[in-house]
Amino acid sequence: MHSFEELSTAFTARFDVQHFPSHPATLYEPASYFLGIGGKRIRPVLCLMGNELFGEIDPDAWHLAASIELFHNFTLIHDDIMDKAPLRRGMPTVHEKYGASTALLTGDVMMVIAYDYLSRIQAQHIRPIMHIYNQTAREVCEGQQMDMDFEKMDRVDLEAYQRMIGLKTSVLLAASLRIGAILGGAGLGNQQHLYDFGKNLGLAFQVQDDYLDAFGDPGKFGKQVGGDIVAGKKTFLLIKTLEVATAEQHRRIDELKKADAIPKIEGMLEIFKACGVDAWARELKEKYMQAAYQALEDIAVLSRRKEPLKQLAAFLVQREY
Amino acid sequence: MHSFEELSTAFTARFDVQHFPSHPATLYEPASYFLGIGGKRIRPVLCLMGNELFGEIDPDAWHLAASIELFHNFTLIHDDIMDKAPLRRGMPTVHEKYGASTALLTGDVMMVIAYDYLSRIQAQHIRPIMHIYNQTAREVCEGQQMDMDFEKMDRVDLEAYQRMIGLKTSVLLAASLRIGAILGGAGLGNQQHLYDFGKNLGLAFQVQDDYLDAFGDPGKFGKQVGGDIVAGKKTFLLIKTLEVATAEQHRRIDELKKADAIPKIEGMLEIFKACGVDAWARELKEKYMQAAYQALEDIAVLSRRKEPLKQLAAFLVQREY
Repeated sequence: MHSFEELSTAFTARFDVQHFPSHPATLYEPASYFLGIGGKRIRPVLCLMGNELFGEIDPDAWHLAASIELFHNFTLIHDDIMDKAPLRRGMPTVHEKYGASTALLTGDVMMVIAYDYLSRIQAQHIRPIMHIYNQTAREVCEGQQMDMDFEKMDRVDLEAYQRMIGLKTSVLLAASLRIGAILGGAGLGNQQHLYDFGKNLGLAFQVQDDYLDAFGDPGKFGKQVGGDIVAGKKTFLLIKTLEVATAEQHRRIDELKKADAIPKIEGMLEIFKACGVDAWARELKEKYMQAAYQALEDIAVLSRRKEPLKQLAAFLVQREY
Repeated sequence: MHSFEELSTAFTARFDVQHFPSHPATLYEPASYFLGIGGKRIRPVLCLMGNELFGEIDPDAWHLAASIELFHNFTLIHDDIMDKAPLRRGMPTVHEKYGASTALLTGDVMMVIAYDYLSRIQAQHIRPIMHIYNQTAREVCEGQQMDMDFEKMDRVDLEAYQRMIGLKTSVLLAASLRIGAILGGAGLGNQQHLYDFGKNLGLAFQVQDDYLDAFGDPGKFGKQVGGDIVAGKKTFLLIKTLEVATAEQHRRIDELKKADAIPKIEGMLEIFKACGVDAWARELKEKYMQAAYQALEDIAVLSRRKEPLKQLAAFLVQREY
């Protein structure tokens, strides 16, 4: 059994190879550049952990892990085009550095190479794994489209928002675990529990992320507090607030839209607290975490095999503030 | 054995179903819209013909044909974004009608669903077919990138241009045939001959297309003659001309760049003829066609099984002018 850190180190070493042909460099150099920006490689490690939960790591799990990480990077390259994001992890995005057409095509070819890694595994596993893989890929696209649709709407239903966040961010985490588990010979019940663990963990993480943006300790959080508020981004906090706010609070929120950054942050934090969405978000996160731990509990393997996943969950989602 | 027309009719009937979930409609409605624009469905029919060359049509061939057609449409949607094309087959392109972000994502999800059809075939065929499929998908991306790179260059080497056209347009035709053949149990030699037939046929078709744009009978050709010349598009004719033209002809070509449509077309046609690229293009097409027919000849199946492919080749590429 290996910890997240051990698997992350091992994966990073194996993934740090040339994934692309050299020609045409105008297509593949941007792809290598983007992978070089790095990232936490959470999804491929989840795939390895899902696999190791049921036995020794299968050599094919490394192909699947690489496939998942390439798929994830393809979605980031395309999302950055759609969001017109200039930076990713402090570095210029692909479309910013190489133009939108090349970024589009670099994303496309990265997805093809993701499928190529997938095709390298033993034949008997390809169909069930591709089934989950394709379903997840489709859902990630759906989540991104819903996110863009929601950006244009004044009000978004909380339930629809949760569904969108689930598709956009959680299903790939959940599927990474499950794909590793399929390769490890897990039965359908165990696959589903592990998937539910990943999905709920992802949702808890997102709630925490939204919460910390508003109420986090700037020193510990590592990001500018209030960034989402200034950007007018739809978050769990804002959507819940819009659902419960009084007419007077709605008027105040409308006013604050035109305010400068500092008064906007201060004003919105006041309304969040008055609406009680800080406590609500803590409870929501707790609810997701309980569901995640329950799902992990339900997996029929020896308890000690679950330790690395428990530790990872505790690391990703802090349960005290 | 079935003719191209019979298989085209049968494929169109089977393909005219709902390929996408209904929600979110903002993502999937554009996908259905684009498929509804139609097209000649050449690639899926080539897959069926490649399959039938070696026996009865395998039920899985219909999944592969659908997969290939979806893949092809995904590339068209993304190419239209990159080329900023307002129309495709006389209808608004996806990005024109729904915006670039949705077009990007609609293309992505169409590719995922293309892979989903591929994953439905019997497990023992998936790996060899995915190997060719992924290689081809990668090459199509490479061809598109090379095409964009060439657009920015003053001079392009004829050999590099042929390689680009091969990747951008011919490999998918060739791979469609080959994928059908793999499913039909063809050996590697026969697969390669069939692939070579498709690749050379595609190149001959492209040379013919470039030739007819300049020298075709407007009534028969169905397009405005000289469209490529007015657009300043790099074609077989222009690239060869730039290789063989005298200094004086180069000066004249530079002058014509600023000319109005009619004098530009007339001037360029004069230079094409003076450089002898009309006869050169006819010979080049003939060379590709001979290579295609030779490759077809080399396939070790009964001659009468090859008849539909011979007829298709003769239909696509007319050998007299």
